[in-house]
Amino acid sequence: MYRAPVEDIAHTLKDIAGLAAAMEQGRFGDLSGDLVDAILEEAGKFASTRVAPLLQVGDKHGTPLKDAEISMPPGWKDVYQEWVSGGWNALTGKEEFGGQALPMMLAIATFEMWNSGSMAFGIGPTLTLGAIEALEAHATEELQQTYLPKLVSGEWMGTMNLTEPQAGSDVGALRTRAERADDGTYRIFGSKIFITYGEHDLTDNIIHLVLARLPDAPAGTKGISLFLVPKYLVNEDGSLGARNDVFCSSIEHKMGIHGSPTCTMIYGDGFAKGSEPGAIGWLIGEENRGLACMFTMMNNARLAVGIQGVAVAEAAYQKALTYAEDRRQMRAPGWSGEGMSPIIEHPDVQRNLLTMKALTGAARSISYACAFALDMAKTGTIEEARYWSDRANLLTPVAKAFSTDIGVDVASIGIQIHGGMGFIEETGAAQFLRDARIAPIYEGTNGIQAIDLVQRKLALGGGQHIKGYIDELRTIADAVAASNNPILGETADRLRAALNDLEATSIWLQETLANKQISEALAGATPYLRLFGLAAGATYLAKGALAGGDDRHKVLARFFAENLLNETVALKDRVLNGAASMLGARSALSL
Amino acid sequence: MYRAPVEDIAHTLKDIAGLAAAMEQGRFGDLSGDLVDAILEEAGKFASTRVAPLLQVGDKHGTPLKDAEISMPPGWKDVYQEWVSGGWNALTGKEEFGGQALPMMLAIATFEMWNSGSMAFGIGPTLTLGAIEALEAHATEELQQTYLPKLVSGEWMGTMNLTEPQAGSDVGALRTRAERADDGTYRIFGSKIFITYGEHDLTDNIIHLVLARLPDAPAGTKGISLFLVPKYLVNEDGSLGARNDVFCSSIEHKMGIHGSPTCTMIYGDGFAKGSEPGAIGWLIGEENRGLACMFTMMNNARLAVGIQGVAVAEAAYQKALTYAEDRRQMRAPGWSGEGMSPIIEHPDVQRNLLTMKALTGAARSISYACAFALDMAKTGTIEEARYWSDRANLLTPVAKAFSTDIGVDVASIGIQIHGGMGFIEETGAAQFLRDARIAPIYEGTNGIQAIDLVQRKLALGGGQHIKGYIDELRTIADAVAASNNPILGETADRLRAALNDLEATSIWLQETLANKQISEALAGATPYLRLFGLAAGATYLAKGALAGGDDRHKVLARFFAENLLNETVALKDRVLNGAASMLGARSALSL
Repeated sequence: MYRAPVEDIAHTLKDIAGLAAAMEQGRFGDLSGDLVDAILEEAGKFASTRVAPLLQVGDKHGTPLKDAEISMPPGWKDVYQEWVSGGWNALTGKEEFGGQALPMMLAIATFEMWNSGSMAFGIGPTLTLGAIEALEAHATEELQQTYLPKLVSGEWMGTMNLTEPQAGSDVGALRTRAERADDGTYRIFGSKIFITYGEHDLTDNIIHLVLARLPDAPAGTKGISLFLVPKYLVNEDGSLGARNDVFCSSIEHKMGIHGSPTCTMIYGDGFAKGSEPGAIGWLIGEENRGLACMFTMMNNARLAVGIQGVAVAEAAYQKALTYAEDRRQMRAPGWSGEGMSPIIEHPDVQRNLLTMKALTGAARSISYACAFALDMAKTGTIEEARYWSDRANLLTPVAKAFSTDIGVDVASIGIQIHGGMGFIEETGAAQFLRDARIAPIYEGTNGIQAIDLVQRKLALGGGQHIKGYIDELRTIADAVAASNNPILGETADRLRAALNDLEATSIWLQETLANKQISEALAGATPYLRLFGLAAGATYLAKGALAGGDDRHKVLARFFAENLLNETVALKDRVLNGAASMLGARSALSL
Repeated sequence: MYRAPVEDIAHTLKDIAGLAAAMEQGRFGDLSGDLVDAILEEAGKFASTRVAPLLQVGDKHGTPLKDAEISMPPGWKDVYQEWVSGGWNALTGKEEFGGQALPMMLAIATFEMWNSGSMAFGIGPTLTLGAIEALEAHATEELQQTYLPKLVSGEWMGTMNLTEPQAGSDVGALRTRAERADDGTYRIFGSKIFITYGEHDLTDNIIHLVLARLPDAPAGTKGISLFLVPKYLVNEDGSLGARNDVFCSSIEHKMGIHGSPTCTMIYGDGFAKGSEPGAIGWLIGEENRGLACMFTMMNNARLAVGIQGVAVAEAAYQKALTYAEDRRQMRAPGWSGEGMSPIIEHPDVQRNLLTMKALTGAARSISYACAFALDMAKTGTIEEARYWSDRANLLTPVAKAFSTDIGVDVASIGIQIHGGMGFIEETGAAQFLRDARIAPIYEGTNGIQAIDLVQRKLALGGGQHIKGYIDELRTIADAVAASNNPILGETADRLRAALNDLEATSIWLQETLANKQISEALAGATPYLRLFGLAAGATYLAKGALAGGDDRHKVLARFFAENLLNETVALKDRVLNGAASMLGARSALSL
């Protein structure tokens, strides 16, 4: 069973992502290292003892739908309510709405733990958090007062309603329509698919944030507005009123995260008898400016999905490690014990476990560094805020895509370590792969993240931000070299080579885009993002290793640098030289 | 729905693996290119129209067990019997037992098609084939006459009973016991797990080949004997007699291949009332020499499992390609059509599809080349036979591990191309990953294959066989250079570089083993096997491209050489320099 790696998480927050130095500078008010430790410790306990037991229950029972209502798996409601009572939903909410106004990076660290316990459980509050952020940033005072206190506490949950069958990655293609009513509200008509937690019985009310199009809206993304549509209308006194005309019509039969209901939602189909037609909605932000509001939700959701990759990787690693220490097969070279050796003694198994651990640590570092940048963007001068905001924007697609890719890879290695038992569902190793497999897809596929990184994020700060970032990473490589610590082996040289690869590809992509060779640049987007993740992740692990503590951080950083980081050579080649043999290769694609 | 790629398969058999040249030399008697085409065409039809429709039925229904009997999914028995009537089980069997004595490579090509249609269907006959080979090689004349005609036709099916809970990869640890009876038969007692097709209703009888230990047997692998244990005893006239004391006690709930029953088999537990205790078995080969017999089954089974990787990759590719041509999202750079472009127009999707196609073609080439070597080992002089037998032995672990690894990778990319739909089970993309995930595990995990390649196969021919193989591949690279064809781009240089990497790592591993640095060598076993697969696969694709035909083979060979083959640089580094940071890194592996 999962045991929250509180020490590794604290180490990554403080020594790698930058929390320790920032607290020393007083950037986070009176937040102290001890308080951070206490929060992580408590969250770890809850995740390990209360959330983790939901994992297989959710997978087995799923979320049956009957008469437009969904029953969550046995035990889930109790744990959710206990979780809400513990204040876990309210970590980052504003104090005026009952939140604790703690840094996002702390919430992200706890999200890792909930998702390690059960990704299907963790995704619900992730979406509530997105709704909270959208309302905090864009909703009227009145809507905020009505909805935020209960969303911040977790008494109600929120959803994001974007996708329609013809509008997946391309939200501009959506058709759900909103009509203005005389009282200033709107009536929503249409249907949405793939709505996570669109319906459930964990909370009394569900607050849907819905993208729709006004009758006179311009075509495409410039004609999209965002609406708040509650499952139950809310009376003036805060009590629940009439059932709104939004219903779940079906749920998906998915490969994984069976405990997370994935709903088709029907708006304004008259299911709620006796009311006027149309689901009653309230505008968030301005008409036709819904995309901006949506990005508020989506950016942080992308980071939170990246964390799901880290989380499942961690859980898969723990299970595989336990199995490898226990299971005995054959005699490893050099084994001097009696009988068969634990399989962890076999070099190939050791390579697999080290790869799992190193990739997980790297993805965690990148994700926490991204969260740190989000927090820093709320402190200091305007210039500082812009710098940190750029940093968060730069790292978001990498945190999302690199982490979820390695989540799948690590879960798959975990199955392999279990041998035949890995393929048996009762073991639980297979579920990690089935659960993890959605994360590279939702909240923008990883291909879209790579395009975003290349086309938008390399342009941040007039193209200078990425250069500054690489220079910062180089100072870490220099510090590794200066440390002259033999335990770190060739780490410094390896980091320098990889950062050179990152720089060369970054510049080449900027130039290629400037030359309007868009296809040539995008042909290398995915290899570039992976290169970015490896180079940054390896450097972060080395940064953590330099912070002191026991040798295991150094040993892991060296393993990454000497065994995994060499992939950047191949990736650089794909970015710089791959397009010629790729574009125009359509003739090879045939049945 | 799957459509058998008959042209690609014929091209790989004839122009890459070597069938065309060998037929010209008369190595395969009167086998002609036309006959090969006709067989492939018919097999393709059967696989596409009869087997492929079983795929999702098998996944959904599974194989329920009741009173020790298993019902196969709806429709399966009809298709299996039709398949047997078509003579498909008998392609390679000896003529004296009703077989068609065709080359193994043709059977392997048809196995690819059955497994593309449904891997859970294909694995059954794979095991029957293993049983046939073991009996042909090691059983007494009497046993052969009794069992081979019906196994060759497919009227009965065969199984391999190796695994026990404590004896997975390490068969030497097994405990099932065999006692000598007065009549020359044996009584088998014990239980076996993970027995594929251990029980089912496709055929009237099931012939189990069971590894067990005699009371006076030496410990370990030198004390293992192989027994034939039929589900029903066979009377002198060939009719079925009494039920033997072997029963299925439970089946596994697996991640994939739900249509393939995975059984726990109990031998000699007295379930069959009224008989003496013990399952009645007949010795195959000599007492305590069962391991040699088992390897006869297992070597070809390893190749056949490799083919499953190729097969699922092909099916996943076809589904993804169809979706990518159909699904429209956003406007790709350079798209001049109306509205949204098909997603295949997006460079990133194109990279994914080309990667799927190229890896599949490479794995197919290696696997067919391995099958070709098996066939050639049965022709020519003793020296030639040894040479080709060495070749088959060298390529078997690569065919098994590289193909099944890319099977998983390609299936996962296939999900990604489908976006959200890929995660929905009804789409079918997810099933390919769930099915494919077992192939790197069974018939010897891919880690074991890598160890086998490094420790045993690099030593073939006194360490010279691998060198000769690399030289042969180099002549292909030279021919690519000499062709001077601009469509092939930098293919020749890329191949030469990769083959240098393959040579350098092969020599380093041989030397390191000679120096008794076993752990150092095995630390690089998995990267080495992957390097081998990439270098050989890329070279084979180029060989096929040189054989003429349309440009698509050239385009694909170039894509592989310029976009995928560069991974060998990183892999070489891991083999040569990776051990230092890996061995002794146990301290990093903790919870």
